[in-house]
Amino acid sequence: MKHFLRFSDLSVEEVQHLFDRTRTLKERFKNYVVYQPLVDRMLAMVFEKSSTRTRVSFEAGIYQMGGSSIVLNMGETQLGRGEPIEDVARVVTRMVDLVMIRTYEQSILERFAAHSRVPVINGLTNEYHPCQILADAYTFVEQRGPLKGKVVAWVGDANNMLYTWLEAAPLLGFRLRVATPAGYALDPSRVPANAAGLFEAFTDPMRAVEGAHLVTTDVWTSMGFEAETQKRLEAFKGFCVDRAMMARAAPDALFMHCLPAHRGEEVAADVLEGPQSVVWEEAENRMHVQKALMEYLLLGKVES
Amino acid sequence: MKHFLRFSDLSVEEVQHLFDRTRTLKERFKNYVVYQPLVDRMLAMVFEKSSTRTRVSFEAGIYQMGGSSIVLNMGETQLGRGEPIEDVARVVTRMVDLVMIRTYEQSILERFAAHSRVPVINGLTNEYHPCQILADAYTFVEQRGPLKGKVVAWVGDANNMLYTWLEAAPLLGFRLRVATPAGYALDPSRVPANAAGLFEAFTDPMRAVEGAHLVTTDVWTSMGFEAETQKRLEAFKGFCVDRAMMARAAPDALFMHCLPAHRGEEVAADVLEGPQSVVWEEAENRMHVQKALMEYLLLGKVES
Amino acid sequence: MKHFLRFSDLSVEEVQHLFDRTRTLKERFKNYVVYQPLVDRMLAMVFEKSSTRTRVSFEAGIYQMGGSSIVLNMGETQLGRGEPIEDVARVVTRMVDLVMIRTYEQSILERFAAHSRVPVINGLTNEYHPCQILADAYTFVEQRGPLKGKVVAWVGDANNMLYTWLEAAPLLGFRLRVATPAGYALDPSRVPANAAGLFEAFTDPMRAVEGAHLVTTDVWTSMGFEAETQKRLEAFKGFCVDRAMMARAAPDALFMHCLPAHRGEEVAADVLEGPQSVVWEEAENRMHVQKALMEYLLLGKVES
Repeated sequence: MKHFLRFSDLSVEEVQHLFDRTRTLKERFKNYVVYQPLVDRMLAMVFEKSSTRTRVSFEAGIYQMGGSSIVLNMGETQLGRGEPIEDVARVVTRMVDLVMIRTYEQSILERFAAHSRVPVINGLTNEYHPCQILADAYTFVEQRGPLKGKVVAWVGDANNMLYTWLEAAPLLGFRLRVATPAGYALDPSRVPANAAGLFEAFTDPMRAVEGAHLVTTDVWTSMGFEAETQKRLEAFKGFCVDRAMMARAAPDALFMHCLPAHRGEEVAADVLEGPQSVVWEEAENRMHVQKALMEYLLLGKVES
Repeated sequence: MKHFLRFSDLSVEEVQHLFDRTRTLKERFKNYVVYQPLVDRMLAMVFEKSSTRTRVSFEAGIYQMGGSSIVLNMGETQLGRGEPIEDVARVVTRMVDLVMIRTYEQSILERFAAHSRVPVINGLTNEYHPCQILADAYTFVEQRGPLKGKVVAWVGDANNMLYTWLEAAPLLGFRLRVATPAGYALDPSRVPANAAGLFEAFTDPMRAVEGAHLVTTDVWTSMGFEAETQKRLEAFKGFCVDRAMMARAAPDALFMHCLPAHRGEEVAADVLEGPQSVVWEEAENRMHVQKALMEYLLLGKVES
Repeated sequence: MKHFLRFSDLSVEEVQHLFDRTRTLKERFKNYVVYQPLVDRMLAMVFEKSSTRTRVSFEAGIYQMGGSSIVLNMGETQLGRGEPIEDVARVVTRMVDLVMIRTYEQSILERFAAHSRVPVINGLTNEYHPCQILADAYTFVEQRGPLKGKVVAWVGDANNMLYTWLEAAPLLGFRLRVATPAGYALDPSRVPANAAGLFEAFTDPMRAVEGAHLVTTDVWTSMGFEAETQKRLEAFKGFCVDRAMMARAAPDALFMHCLPAHRGEEVAADVLEGPQSVVWEEAENRMHVQKALMEYLLLGKVES
């Protein structure tokens, strides 16, 4: 049984398979071709943090493939009332076929997975956001071809998105240029050994985006840390991805953002809405890569 | 692509088609005939206000037709955290086939629809409640035949229900007699030009219901305005639809109420539970007209 | 039309039929045999108290059988805003095929059922928890054969679980030995007449479990009564089901707990996790007995 707890749980071949399937499944969706290999299968979605995109993309995805889903909001259920996560895992995974969890520490996810009878998917933790990076990487490939040898520039906060890009780099063969403000640098101890030669850190975003094929960023203040906002607005001055910054990237560079975006903070409105932005396609692709992922975790390598 | 944001979005022919389909779909439901033209289609239901009837009627309706649904409660998701409604629309409508929104200002609904890739349905706004009036009008037709030339009496608050009846009048050809207390009169600027000759305003409810074929009302204090309750209880004295009032209407007059009802306030218990009341049928018909509406918005004029 | 409001709503033959079907449906689930007799049928789940197990087990169950479900949380909907439960029943049961309610007083459930057009299931009330006891009894039968003549020992609080065991005893022919602390004895007026000869009350748990074939308990403080916790922890000292206590039961005795469990309070960790514990199987069986129950209430005695 296979889980998807972090990006590095996948092999190069598996990523390739998922991208192939994503293309197929997306095409079927666009053409209203009914494809329901997951009839009778149920996904449980466990949320400790609120969500729009994660929930809609998984829920729509599993229904499109003929399955069904249950949403468990921690606040609403006994999960939130001190029951050991191990017990929850043992009970819930006797009744469903697949679990997606959005929680805080990666360790909570790992404890759940260790006691699960069914595959578990990381729907977002403090440490990683592998489904989003799978969608982003797929979106690049769909728009521009293989990531191999390409340059991805990350501008802004050293968060779970960035650490997941670092896990993806050795698998997909791209280079990562990271610009963070002084005092907000990434934690070198969290750089995977096999990514060490693939990334470079900057404090000047203009240098980081130089010639990049993809420029990407995220909000500066994550959910739950709103108190720090004012301090961070100060520290991240100059890190807004605007037209001047995009002009330093490669001429056909793409812009991505996992949304929601704060216009005028981490990204200028005219970049977000501009011709290089693929943020809406990227959002839709969350659903399609996750459909490919669910199909793979439940049915293995489907070719049909 | 067609939306249903207000009653006047429909033509006379479209209303007739929806009523014909409602009758067919209701008959199938009553006879346990499986009819699932919406397999693979998903409805997103966006709620900014709580709801029982709206949610159950849409959710049961889409499932009966083989589709599925996602509920997005603003409070629970990032929608409520300041993300522009236009961004939400662009993301969500890439993943689902149809959207129902229950929100405050009609303008929020219109902004969502303007950025939507899929049909959008008004599930209730401060200004209009077109699904409910569709159900009410259908219920009248089902019980008594065409509304053309008939008299509908609205007793009580000049709210979104009344303004929707005003939009329906020219399409269905009935006359509307409106009784509101002094100081709570309807806003003449919101009467559609083509309804001007079809309605008459009163401050004496006994005169308004005179000879009416349908008497209908709603709670005096809408959700969110409970603070005004005491003042309104005073102002609306004498506007309770009771047996004496029903006796002034036509002998076979129907009574409708979109529920929940406050017995002893806007309606007497013995009218609500009496032989002229069709409130439970009316509630069920919400579901059937909405099924016809969803079928029409997604598949066009189905005849089978 | 049949409801399942309390265990005694079933006859001996009906319990036997449900157990037979549970075995069949569970086997199909384990072998991924698609069996969807409830296509087009919808279950409404009405919650006044939060829930994990009840919701997942019903929701997964109805989906596995091809149907769908709606969750109505009282807090979220107008149900919680003072609408008479009779009105809710009349509206909701025009649109769905089956209702499960988790509420406070049994009388609320009964009022709902009295105005329902469709079968109603007790998903937990202050007084009874019949679905859980159906699962527990089935689990015993599955593991050890018929309950007839066997001894079930209940250790701890005289709660809704115990009063449901008392209703099950005459139907299934087992004897019930109940140990509660002084001051927490069961209410003799609530012992069904036909169970009077089948149960014995103790204040010493060691005597109650003597030779028992099943030892079962529950948390000492139910949801909503957390304020009493400290006082109860004191009063229930010595009522923890530990290895010493299990050693007094029959050699092949089973241990059950409806979860969530408080290790070190009502049950020792090594009993909960030990070889006699069937708590995870018991939790899974909730789903399977409820599937059999829903099938029976909607379709009658299915044999295929």
